[in-house]
Amino acid sequence: MDAAEKKTALRMIPYGLYVLTAESGDELGAATVNWVTQASFEPPLVVVGVKTDSGVYAVLQKSRAFALNVLGKGQQGLAFTFFKPAQRDGDAISGEKFRRGATGSPILASTPAFVDCRVVEIVARGDHAVVVGEVVDAGVARQPEGRADDATLWLKDLGEKTFYGG
Amino acid sequence: MDAAEKKTALRMIPYGLYVLTAESGDELGAATVNWVTQASFEPPLVVVGVKTDSGVYAVLQKSRAFALNVLGKGQQGLAFTFFKPAQRDGDAISGEKFRRGATGSPILASTPAFVDCRVVEIVARGDHAVVVGEVVDAGVARQPEGRADDATLWLKDLGEKTFYGG
Repeated sequence: MDAAEKKTALRMIPYGLYVLTAESGDELGAATVNWVTQASFEPPLVVVGVKTDSGVYAVLQKSRAFALNVLGKGQQGLAFTFFKPAQRDGDAISGEKFRRGATGSPILASTPAFVDCRVVEIVARGDHAVVVGEVVDAGVARQPEGRADDATLWLKDLGEKTFYGG
Repeated sequence: MDAAEKKTALRMIPYGLYVLTAESGDELGAATVNWVTQASFEPPLVVVGVKTDSGVYAVLQKSRAFALNVLGKGQQGLAFTFFKPAQRDGDAISGEKFRRGATGSPILASTPAFVDCRVVEIVARGDHAVVVGEVVDAGVARQPEGRADDATLWLKDLGEKTFYGG
């Protein structure tokens, strides 16, 4: 396999950006992720590729729950904030206010939509784990005008040369 | 959970379009899919949400292999072709020429890139199965200019109101 062709072919997959959050006891994890797809309508399932040495992965394995906070167009700053390790301060994570969703996972106040999931399966076979979640709650704070996916911050919105995994 | 909010939140996930192919003995499956994400760098893993009552799902369970043929900008016609059941005619599927990749999976001649995968795990918990594949070969027929993901046909390119799952 040609490494350059593999890289280019995989970079042809387009992505949105999300802040993945989880909480267990007094441990809280939050990280920007892009490897996300829906994977079933009924029950509604989503899949997230989560770095196995990340804080949020350690937390969601305990909580067996997570939320995906969908970043909106213009929220590049928030994406970069959660590339760094999350810091909790009262009812804020890295300066972003949150509440707890149906599963107890943190729902950010400033993002346009979220899905709140319980973990139904984890396939850990690489540097990122395939985390399968069943959507148990979802919310839209700002109804998108036009296509819903156009309201989402895309990986390509971070800059011409920015690619990211997990 | 509010069904309309769930639908909108999940539709905020942007997608590309791919023709998923598999072959086992004299059975061949091919279908347009969009629920795709990378899920690990090392080993390189991808995840596809595959309709459990589809022909291609029956085939890839036997072959334990599949290819994702990445559709390029302008290939809307090909996306619609593979929404319909695939028909084989010699070295063509539904009119599209193919060759066999490293895993034996059909690689379409007219798409700009492919990843060829062996199935490493299937999580079947809904109307679509989470199929985890390890990339064993990949190829790029036409090197993208600019960002690789801009060269891909996006779900939104099929029309303002077109959404699709699997």
